[in-house]
Amino acid sequence: MSHRVSDSTVRRLSQYLRVLEDLERSGATTVSSEALAAGGGTTAAQVRKDLSQFGSFGKRGLGYPVVDLGARLRSILGLERRWRVVLVGAGRIGSALFSYPNFTSRGYDCVAVLDSDPVKVGRWWGAVPVRPAEELEEVIRTLDVDLVIIAVPAEEAQRVADRVVSAGAKGILNFAAVALRVPPHVPVTNVNLVMELEALSFSVTQVGKDA
Amino acid sequence: MSHRVSDSTVRRLSQYLRVLEDLERSGATTVSSEALAAGGGTTAAQVRKDLSQFGSFGKRGLGYPVVDLGARLRSILGLERRWRVVLVGAGRIGSALFSYPNFTSRGYDCVAVLDSDPVKVGRWWGAVPVRPAEELEEVIRTLDVDLVIIAVPAEEAQRVADRVVSAGAKGILNFAAVALRVPPHVPVTNVNLVMELEALSFSVTQVGKDA
Repeated sequence: MSHRVSDSTVRRLSQYLRVLEDLERSGATTVSSEALAAGGGTTAAQVRKDLSQFGSFGKRGLGYPVVDLGARLRSILGLERRWRVVLVGAGRIGSALFSYPNFTSRGYDCVAVLDSDPVKVGRWWGAVPVRPAEELEEVIRTLDVDLVIIAVPAEEAQRVADRVVSAGAKGILNFAAVALRVPPHVPVTNVNLVMELEALSFSVTQVGKDA
Repeated sequence: MSHRVSDSTVRRLSQYLRVLEDLERSGATTVSSEALAAGGGTTAAQVRKDLSQFGSFGKRGLGYPVVDLGARLRSILGLERRWRVVLVGAGRIGSALFSYPNFTSRGYDCVAVLDSDPVKVGRWWGAVPVRPAEELEEVIRTLDVDLVIIAVPAEEAQRVADRVVSAGAKGILNFAAVALRVPPHVPVTNVNLVMELEALSFSVTQVGKDA
C-alpha cells in the first residue's frame, strides 16, 4: 500500500485489534462497527472509514468477521512475526515497559538491555542481562535486532540513535524528550510523557472554552 | 476556537514549543518555519499549516517571533496556568513519570499519589505522601485536583475512572490498556506503551514494503 496512513489511524487499528481479540476469546464470530467503535473510543463511521483503507471487510448488515478481521489487522500492524528488541537505558521507563502486559505476547522479544552505569551492568532483568552501553553495535549485529528502545537522558539520545542507525537496526522507539535526526528508512516513534499531559491539558482547556 | 484540532497537531505544537524555548534561552529573536520543522520532525509547510489554524503569526520572509510565538503556544496548550495532578497507582509507570524532566517545570504539580497496596501507603515520594486508594474522592475534592493519572491494572481502571468523574476531576491520563468509558466533558488521553511499539512496527513494515 503506497498511501500514507496517519498515526492516529494506526493507533485506532491497535484498539480495534484489542476488541477483536477479546471477542475471539469469548467465541463471538461477527462484530458491528458500532461495537468496534465503542471499544476504540471512536464512531462507527470512523471504524468503517479506517478499515476501508485496507480493502473490503465484512458484509453490509452482517458486521465484520471477528477472526478474519483480527488476522488482517495483525498483518497490517506487522504482528504476524516476532520483533527482536533492545532497550538502551535500564531506568524507570524501561522497567515500566517491561512490566507491561502483552509486551512479549504481542511479539516483542527483548533480547538485551544496555546501560552505561557500571552498577547496573551485570544485573539480570528476568532472563535478560544488562550489558555495557559500549556493546550496542555488537548486540544489534550479533543478536539480529530489529527495534531499539531509547530510554536515556535527552542529551545522550542523538548519539545513541546515530549508533543504532549505523549498526543497522530498523526502527526506534524514543522516550527521550528530543527530536532525533535519523534517515527516512529508520522510522522513529516518539513517546514523551509530559507531551501526553500537554495533549490532555489542551483538551481540558478546549472543553472549558466550548462550555 | 470551535474547530477540532487533531491530536497529532497538538503533539507538533508541543514540539515547536520545545524548539522555541531552546531558542529563547539562546537569545534568538526570530525562527524560520524550516527550523521549527527540523526540531519538530516535520516539514516547513506543515509548520505553517499548523500555526495558521491559530491565527496569523510572523511576517513573510522574517520568520516567527520567538518570544511571542512561545507565549501563544503556551496559551493554546493550556500551560499558562498550573495543573493539580493526582497519580493513582504508585507503580513503575508512575515513578517513571515522576522522574521525567519538566514534569513540574511545565506546570504540573503532583499533589498526591494513591495506591491500594498497604505496603506502599504511608511512604513519601519526594514531598508527596502515598495515600490509601479509598481517599481518591476526598483527595480530588479537598486538594482541588484538575487531572488524574490512572496507572493501575486494566481490570481496575474503569472503576477508578468512574470515581474520578463523579468526584469532579477535569481530565484523565490513562496508562491502563483499556478504553475508558467517560462522559464527553472529561477528556481522556491514552498512553499504551505496547501500542507505541505497534505503531513503530507498522512503520517499519511499511518501509519494507515501499523498498
